[in-house]
Parts: sequence; structure tokens; C-alpha cells
Amino acid sequence: MDSMTLIAMTSIFIAGLTTGFGTMGPALAEGRAVATALTSLAQQPDASATITRTLFVGLAMIESTAIYCFVVSMIVIFANPFWNYAVAQAAGQ
Amino acid sequence: MDSMTLIAMTSIFIAGLTTGFGTMGPALAEGRAVATALTSLAQQPDASATITRTLFVGLAMIESTAIYCFVVSMIVIFANPFWNYAVAQAAGQ
Amino acid sequence: MDSMTLIAMTSIFIAGLTTGFGTMGPALAEGRAVATALTSLAQQPDASATITRTLFVGLAMIESTAIYCFVVSMIVIFANPFWNYAVAQAAGQ
Amino acid sequence: MDSMTLIAMTSIFIAGLTTGFGTMGPALAEGRAVATALTSLAQQPDASATITRTLFVGLAMIESTAIYCFVVSMIVIFANPFWNYAVAQAAGQ
Amino acid sequence: MDSMTLIAMTSIFIAGLTTGFGTMGPALAEGRAVATALTSLAQQPDASATITRTLFVGLAMIESTAIYCFVVSMIVIFANPFWNYAVAQAAGQ
Amino acid sequence: MDSMTLIAMTSIFIAGLTTGFGTMGPALAEGRAVATALTSLAQQPDASATITRTLFVGLAMIESTAIYCFVVSMIVIFANPFWNYAVAQAAGQ
Amino acid sequence: MDSMTLIAMTSIFIAGLTTGFGTMGPALAEGRAVATALTSLAQQPDASATITRTLFVGLAMIESTAIYCFVVSMIVIFANPFWNYAVAQAAGQ
Amino acid sequence: MDSMTLIAMTSIFIAGLTTGFGTMGPALAEGRAVATALTSLAQQPDASATITRTLFVGLAMIESTAIYCFVVSMIVIFANPFWNYAVAQAAGQ
Amino acid sequence: MDSMTLIAMTSIFIAGLTTGFGTMGPALAEGRAVATALTSLAQQPDASATITRTLFVGLAMIESTAIYCFVVSMIVIFANPFWNYAVAQAAGQ
Amino acid sequence: MDSMTLIAMTSIFIAGLTTGFGTMGPALAEGRAVATALTSLAQQPDASATITRTLFVGLAMIESTAIYCFVVSMIVIFANPFWNYAVAQAAGQ
Amino acid sequence: MDSMTLIAMTSIFIAGLTTGFGTMGPALAEGRAVATALTSLAQQPDASATITRTLFVGLAMIESTAIYCFVVSMIVIFANPFWNYAVAQAAGQ
Amino acid sequence: MDSMTLIAMTSIFIAGLTTGFGTMGPALAEGRAVATALTSLAQQPDASATITRTLFVGLAMIESTAIYCFVVSMIVIFANPFWNYAVAQAAGQ
Amino acid sequence: MDSMTLIAMTSIFIAGLTTGFGTMGPALAEGRAVATALTSLAQQPDASATITRTLFVGLAMIESTAIYCFVVSMIVIFANPFWNYAVAQAAGQ
Amino acid sequence: MDSMTLIAMTSIFIAGLTTGFGTMGPALAEGRAVATALTSLAQQPDASATITRTLFVGLAMIESTAIYCFVVSMIVIFANPFWNYAVAQAAGQ
Repeated sequence: MDSMTLIAMTSIFIAGLTTGFGTMGPALAEGRAVATALTSLAQQPDASATITRTLFVGLAMIESTAIYCFVVSMIVIFANPFWNYAVAQAAGQ
Repeated sequence: MDSMTLIAMTSIFIAGLTTGFGTMGPALAEGRAVATALTSLAQQPDASATITRTLFVGLAMIESTAIYCFVVSMIVIFANPFWNYAVAQAAGQ
Repeated sequence: MDSMTLIAMTSIFIAGLTTGFGTMGPALAEGRAVATALTSLAQQPDASATITRTLFVGLAMIESTAIYCFVVSMIVIFANPFWNYAVAQAAGQ
Repeated sequence: MDSMTLIAMTSIFIAGLTTGFGTMGPALAEGRAVATALTSLAQQPDASATITRTLFVGLAMIESTAIYCFVVSMIVIFANPFWNYAVAQAAGQ
Repeated sequence: MDSMTLIAMTSIFIAGLTTGFGTMGPALAEGRAVATALTSLAQQPDASATITRTLFVGLAMIESTAIYCFVVSMIVIFANPFWNYAVAQAAGQ
Repeated sequence: MDSMTLIAMTSIFIAGLTTGFGTMGPALAEGRAVATALTSLAQQPDASATITRTLFVGLAMIESTAIYCFVVSMIVIFANPFWNYAVAQAAGQ
Repeated sequence: MDSMTLIAMTSIFIAGLTTGFGTMGPALAEGRAVATALTSLAQQPDASATITRTLFVGLAMIESTAIYCFVVSMIVIFANPFWNYAVAQAAGQ
Repeated sequence: MDSMTLIAMTSIFIAGLTTGFGTMGPALAEGRAVATALTSLAQQPDASATITRTLFVGLAMIESTAIYCFVVSMIVIFANPFWNYAVAQAAGQ
Repeated sequence: MDSMTLIAMTSIFIAGLTTGFGTMGPALAEGRAVATALTSLAQQPDASATITRTLFVGLAMIESTAIYCFVVSMIVIFANPFWNYAVAQAAGQ
Repeated sequence: MDSMTLIAMTSIFIAGLTTGFGTMGPALAEGRAVATALTSLAQQPDASATITRTLFVGLAMIESTAIYCFVVSMIVIFANPFWNYAVAQAAGQ
Repeated sequence: MDSMTLIAMTSIFIAGLTTGFGTMGPALAEGRAVATALTSLAQQPDASATITRTLFVGLAMIESTAIYCFVVSMIVIFANPFWNYAVAQAAGQ
Repeated sequence: MDSMTLIAMTSIFIAGLTTGFGTMGPALAEGRAVATALTSLAQQPDASATITRTLFVGLAMIESTAIYCFVVSMIVIFANPFWNYAVAQAAGQ
Repeated sequence: MDSMTLIAMTSIFIAGLTTGFGTMGPALAEGRAVATALTSLAQQPDASATITRTLFVGLAMIESTAIYCFVVSMIVIFANPFWNYAVAQAAGQ
Repeated sequence: MDSMTLIAMTSIFIAGLTTGFGTMGPALAEGRAVATALTSLAQQPDASATITRTLFVGLAMIESTAIYCFVVSMIVIFANPFWNYAVAQAAGQ
């Protein structure tokens, strides 16, 4: 069990975990926001312009937290500085 | 228990975990959104066009978080850089 | 405890876990959507066409997340690249 | 503790776990759908045909997720490719 | 700790776990369905025929998920292919 | 720590666990059903015959899931095929 | 750590666990049933005979699940077949 | 770490656990029953005789499950057959 | 790590755990009962005699479950038969 | 790691745990009681004497369960019979 | 890893845990009490004197449970008899 | 792994844990208090002076429990008597 | 398993965990805030300017806590002082 | 695994954990406060000045608990006295 294997395993594990669990919160939050938007539209159809605009701004902000998680996963898989260092060490060895 | 086995095991484990748990949040959120859409339709059938459109945009955004999880699973199974590196090492050995 | 046994064990474990737990969210979400559809039908029988159509679209989207889990399970059991690699290694040994 | 024992143990463990836990979600979801159907029937007896039909379609979709779990359990017990490979290896040894 | 003991232990463990936990969901779901049926009967005694019929169909579908668990337990105790294989191996040894 | 001790320990452990936890769901479900029956009786005393009959049918179905658990416990204690096999092995040794 | 000690430890552990946790569900369920009975009595004092009778039947059925747990505990402490077998083995040794 | 120490440790552990956790359910259930009784008394002071009588019968039944736990704890501490057997073995050694 | 140390450690551990966790249920239950009593007093000040009396009887019964836990803790600390046996053994050694 | 260190560690651990977790229940229960008292005072200012008196009696009973935990912690720190025995043993050695 | 290190580690661990978790209950309880006080003030501004007085008495009692935790933490850090004994042993060695 | 490293690790671990988790309760409690204050202000703007004053007193008391946690963390990092003792031992060695 | 591997593994693990779990709270909180904003807009369209402004200020403050988590993750991956120290040690070795 | 590596690992782990989990409470609390502010604004637009002011004071106090966590994380990463001591020891060695 050498160093590179361990770093690879940890990276794979965390890449999945961060996206897998980190999207749960945003998904539920977006579900709630969309649900309330639909209730509001049914209750006050005249305000649909304002409601839709506010909904999209809100969804964008909530989605941003899901994006953070996806970005961290991608960094860990494809731009992992610790892995790059280890590869450089192994190459220069 | 060599390096490749460990990386393979971790990849399989995470591929399943990420999809298995990561789709729970989106599923529940979509269930909530659809449920509220149905309530709103029953309450205000005249606004069905706006409600349906908003619902589909919302479902698309929620589904996107489920897609992130599925994408990470697929990357981990079929385009795993750590596995590729290990295969290349084993081949060049 | 050789490599193939470990990969097989992890694959079986994850195949079951992904389907077993991953269908919990979609099941609950579908239950909620169906329940609300029934309430809406009882409240506004005239809108039954719109309600039923929206329900089926929604159920299809929720079911899609359950399908992702089932697909990952099937890939892990029947089209597992890590297992195939190990079998090829063992055959070529 | 040879390979076959380990694969057998994992298979038994997962077969039970997948069905045991995987049917919890569908069961609760069906309970909810049936309960709402009964409430709706009591509230709007005239719409009983639509309600019953929608209920059965919904129950079928929810039951499908329970079937996925049962199918995975049966595959793991009676059509397990990893077990078959191990038996073939042991026979050919 | 030979192979047969391990398979026997896992089988006993899973047989109990699958039934013990797997019946929790169906039990709660049936309790909910029965409870709503009683409320509906008290609210709309005239619809008792429809309500009772729908209740029994629903209970049958929910009970089916409990039956799946019981069946898996019985298979694991009395028709376990892995155990049979091990007994055959031990007998032929 | 010989085989028989391990099988005995697992059997005792599972016999208690299956009954101890498996009766929690049915108990709560019966409590809910009885509670709703009492509310319904207070609300609609005239329908007491229908309510009582539906309650008893429902309680019987819920109790059946508790019975499954108890039966599995009894099988594990008094008719355990794995234990019988081990005893036969030990006697014939 | 001989066999008898292990069986004794497991038996004591399970005897307490089964009763300690297994009575939680029935207790909560009885609390719910009694609470609803009191609410119903306050709401409809005239139906006190029917309410009380239904309550006692319900409490008896809920208590039965607590009795199952207590019976399993007593079997495990005082009529444990695995312990008896071990004592017989030790005596005949 | 001889046999007697292990049995003693398990007995102390289970005696506390059974009472400590097993009284949680009854306590909460009694709290619920008492709370509802007070609400009912405030709502229908005329029915205080029936309410009080039903409350006491219900509290007795709930308390019975707490008594089961206490009895098992006392048996485990003061009338433990496994401990007695071990003491007899140690004395006769 | 001799026998007496282990018994002492287990006893201290369980004495604290039983009281620390076992009083959580009664405390919450008493809080609920007191809270409902206050609501009832505010709603029906004329029935304050009956309410207060019922409250005190109920608090006494709930407190009894807390007392069980405290008693078991005190037995485990100050009248522990297993510890006394071990001290007697150590003294007579 | 001698006996005294282990007993000291266990004692410190349990002293903190018992107070730290054991006061959670009473604190929440008192919060509930105080909150209801305030609601009742706002709703029925004339009954403030009865409400305040009942509140204080109730708080005293709830606080008593917190006191049990604190007392057990103090006994474990400052009047621990197992520690005293160990100190006496060490002194007399 | 000598005795003093272990006692120091346990003391630091418990000092933090007791305060960190033990203040959660009181904080939530105070939040609830304050929130209800504000609601009551808005509903019945005339009773502000009684409400404020009762609130402060209640907050004092709830705070007392947080103080218990803080006191135990301080005892464990600054007046720990087990640590003092160990220091004395080490000094007299 | 010498003593100082272990004490340092435990101190860092607990310093973070105490603040990280210990501020969760106060934060939620303050959120609740502030939320209720805003509701009350909207409902009774005339009582804004009393409401604001009570809110600030309440926030101060809730914040005090967060301060306890922060203080314990700071003591553990910067005024840790166990660390100081260890440093003194190491210096005097 | 040298020092650098361990630090790299811990850094990757924590970078993912902090973002993955730390964005759950902000996501849910933003979902709640957006949902309430939509409800408020539907209820009082005239106050849309004030509501939108308050919503954006609130979202900014909630997002700030998500930013803290992302910042800590980035520091741990790209500006980790402990990793830099270890690299410097390894280079200077 | 030398001392410095262990301290570095613990520091990284706790820095992430404290911020990652410690911001969950404040985020949810701020979400609640903002949500209630929006409801209050919609209900009483005239009181918007008081509501906004109280909201900002409240948000500041809630944010303060998130700041505590962030501060502890920063201290642990950049001003860690235990790490500094270890570096000084290593340098002076």
C-alpha cells in the first residue's frame, strides 16, 4: 500500500462523497423553492413576473452551493495538487 | 492486496454510493415540487400554463443535481484518472 | 483473500446497497406525488386531465432517479470494467 | 476463510439487506397513497372511478421500486456472476 | 472458524434482520392505511363499501412487501444455495 | 471459540433482536389504528359496528407482521437447521 | 474465554436488550391509545362504554407485542436450548 | 480476564442499560397520557370521573412495560442463572 | 488490567449512563405534563383543583421511572453484588 | 496503563457525560414549561397566581432529575467507592 | 503513553464535550422561552410585568443546568482530584 | 507518539469540536428568538420597545452559553494546565 | 505511509467534507428564505421592493457562511501551511 | 508517523470540521430569521424600519457564532500554539 494508492483512494472517495451528499441540501432547497413558487402562482397569478424572477435568482444562488461541491469534486479528481506532487515525485525518483 | 485492487474497490464503492444516496435528495425534492404543482393545479386550473412551465424549469434544475451525481459515478467507473494511471504503471512495469 | 475476491465482494455489496437504499427516496417521492394527485382529484374532479398528465410526467422524472440507481447496480454486476480487467489479468497470467 | 466463503457471505448479507431495507420506502409510500385515496373517497365519493384508477397506476409505479430490490436480491442469490465464476474456478482447479 | 460456520452465522443473522426490520415499514404503512380508513368511515359512512374494498386492495399490496422480506428469510434459512453448495462440498470431501 | 458456540451466539442474538425490534413497528401501527378508531367512535358513534369490524381486520393484518418476527425467532431458537446440522456433525464426529 | 462464558454473555446481553428496547414501541403505542381515549371521552362522554371496550381490546393487542419480547427474554434466560446443550456437554465431558 | 469477570461486566452493563433506556418509552407515554387527561379535564370537567379512571387504568398498563424492564434488571443483578452457575463452578473447582 | 478494575470501570460507566440518559425521558414527560397543566389552568381556571391533583398523581408516576434509574445507579455503585463477590475473593485470596 | 489510571479515566469520562447529556432533557423540559406558562399568562392574566405556583412546583420536579445527574457526577468525582478502594489498595501495598 | 498523559487527555476531552454539548439543551430551551415571551408580549402587552418576571425566573432555572455543565468542566480542568492524585504520586516518586 | 503530541492533538481536537458544535444550539435558539421578535413586531408595532428590550436580554443569555463554549476552547488552546504541566516537565527534564 | 502522504490524505478528505457538508445548511436556509419571499410576494405584491431588498441582504449573509466553508477548503488544498512546511522539509532534506 | 505529522493532521481535520459543521447552525438560524422578516414585512409593511433594524441586529448576533467557528479554524491553521511549539522543538533539536 504505497503513498500514491492511498492518495488515489482518498481522492476517489472524497470526490464521490462531496458530490453525492453535497447535492442533497441544494436539491431539497430547490424543491422547496419551486414548490412555494407554484403555490404562490396559484394564489396570485397576477404577480407571476415578480415571482418567476425572484425564483430564478433564488435558484441560481442555491445552485451555486451545489456548484461549489461539484467544483471541489472536479478539483480533487482532475487538478489535485497532492496527486500531482506525488506523480512528480514518482517520476523524478 | 495490491494497489490496483484497492483503487478498483474504492471506485466501485464510491460509484454506487454517490448515485445511491445522491439521488435521494433530488427524488424527494421532485416529489415535493410535483405534489405542489398538483395542488396548485387543483386550486387554480386557469394558471395551468404558468404552473406547468415553472414546474418543468424547476424539475430541470433539481434533476441537474442528480445528474452531477450520476456524472461523477460514470467518471469514477469509466474515466477514472487514478485507475488509468495505475493501469499505465502496471503495463509499463 | 486475493484481488478478485475483494472486487467481487465489493461489487455485490454495492450493487445491493445502491438499489436497496437508492430506491427509498424515489419511492417516498412517488408516494407523495400520488397522494397529492388523489387529493387534488377529489378537490377538483374537473381538472383530472391536467392533473393526471402532470402526475405522469412527474412520476417519470422521479422514476428516472430510481433508474439511475438500478443502472449503476446492473453495471456493477454485469459490466464492471474493474472486474473485467481482473478477469483478463487472471486469464493472461 | 477462502474466497468462496467470503463471496457467499457477502451475497447472503446483501440479498437480505437489499430486500429488508429496500421495501421500507415502497411500503411507507404505498401506505401514504392508500391512506390519501381513502380520504379522497370519503370526501368525493363521486370521483371514485378516477381516484381508484390513479391509485392503482401509482401503486404499480411505487411497487416497481420494491421489485427492483427483490430482483437484485434474487440475482445475488440465484444468478450471481461472481459466484458462478468462483464455482467455475473451483471446479476447474 | 471454518467456512460452514461462517455461512451459517451470516444466514441466521440475515434471516432475522430481514424479517425484523423489513416488517417495520409495512406495519407502519398498514397502520396508517387502517387509521385513515377508520377516519373515512366515520366521516362518510355511506361510502363504506368502496372504502373497505380499496383498503383491502391496498393492505394486500403493502403486505406483499412484508411477504418479500419473509420469503427472503425463508430462502436464506431453508433453501440457501450457498449453504447447500458448502454441505455438498463437505459431504464430497 | 468453536463453531457450535458461534452459531449458538448468533442464534441467541438474532432471536432477541428480531422480536425486540421487529415488534416496534407493529406496536406503533396498532397504537395508531386503535387511536384513530377511538376518535372515529367519538365522532360517529352510529358507525361503531363498521368501525370496530374494520379495526379488528386491520389489527389482525398488522399483528401478522409481528407474528412473522416471532416465528422467525422461534425457528432460530428451536428449529434452527444450521444448529441441527452442527449438532449432527458433532454427534457423528 | 470458553464457550459457556460466551453463550452466557450473549444470553444476558440479549435478554436485557430485547425487553429494554422491545417495550419502547408498545409503551408509546399504549400512551397514544390511552391519550386518544381520554380525548374521545371528553368529546363524546355518551359513548364511554364503546370507547372503553375498544380501548381495552386495543391495549391487549398492543401489550401482546410487549409480551412477545418478555417471553423471548425469559426463554433466553431460563429455557435457553443452546445453554442447556452446552451445560450437558460440560457435564458429560 | 476470566469468565466470571466477563459475566459480571455484561450483567452490570445490561442491568443499567435495560432500566436506563427501557424506562424512556413508558415515561414519554405516561407524560402523553397525563397531558391529554389534563386537556380533557379542562375541556369536559363533568366527565372527570370517567377520565380519571381510564387514565389510571392506562397508566397501570404503560407502567407494566417499565416494570418488565426493571424486573429483567433485577433478575440480571440478583437472580442471574448464568452467574450462579459460574459461582457454583468456581466453588466446586 | 485485572478483574476488579474491569468490574469497577463497568460499574462507574453504567451508573452514570443509566442516570444520565434514563432521566431524559421522565424530564421531557414531566415538562409535557406541566406544560399541558398550565394550558388547562389558563383555559379552565375553575377546574384547578382536579387539574392540580391529576397533575401531581401523574408526575409521581413519571418520576417513578426516573427513580428506577437512580435506584439501579445506586445499587451499581454502593450495593453491587458482583463487586462484593470480587472484593470477597480478593480478601480471601 | 495500571488499574488506577483506568478507573480515573472512566470516572472523569462518566462525570462529564452524565452531567453534559443528562441536563439536556431537563433543560428542554423546563424551556417547554416556562414557554407554556408565558402563553398561559398572556391568555389568562387573572389566573397568574395558580399558574405561577404550578409552574414552580413543576420546575422543581423537573430540576430534580437534573439534580440526580449532577449528584451522580459528584459521587463519581468526589466519593467514588471504587477509586477509594483502589487508593486504599495502593496505599496498603 | 503513561498514566498522566491519559488522564490529561481524558480530562481535556471531557471538559470540552461537557460544555460543548451540555449547553445545547439550555440554549434551545432559552430560545424557546424567549420566543414565547415575545409572542405573549405582543399578544397581551398589559401583562408585561408578570411575563417578564416569570421569564427571568425561568431563564435562571434553565441557565442553572448550563452552569452545572460549565462547573463540571471547570472542576475537570482546574480541580480534578484524579489529576491531583497523579501529580502527587509523580512528585513523591 | 510521545505524551506532548497526544495532549496537543486532544487539545486541538476538543477546541474545534467544542466551538464547532457548541455554537449550533445558541445559533438556532437566537434564530428562533429573532424570528419570533419579528413576528411580534409585525403583529403589535406599539409594543416595540418592550419587545426589543426583552429580545436583547434574551439574546444576551443565549449568547452566554455560546461564550461558555468559546471560553472553554480558548482555555484549552491558550491556558491548558495539562499542556503547561507537560511543557514544564519537558523543560525540567 | 510517510508523513506527506498522511497530510495529503487528510487535506483531501477535509477539503471535500467541509464543502460537501458545510453547504448543506446554507442551501437549506436559502431555500427557506426564497420560499418565504415568494409567499410574501404573492401575499403583498405592493411590498415587492422591500421584500426583494431584504431577501438579497439575507441571502448574502447566508451565502457568507457557505463561502467560509469554501474558503477553508481552498486554503486546505492550495495554501495549506502544514503541507508547505512538509514540502520544505522534504526539499531541504 | 512522527509528532509533527500527527499535529498537522489533527489541525487540518479540525479546521475543516469546525467551519464545515459549525456554520450549519448559524446558516439555518439566519434562514429562519430572514424568512420571518419577509413574512412580517408582507404582513405589516408600515413597520419595515423597525423590522429591518431588528433583523440586522439579530443577524449580526447569529453571525457572531459563525465567526467564532471561523476564528477557531483560523487559529488552528495559522496561529496554532501546539504546532509552533513543535516547530520550535524541531528547529532547536
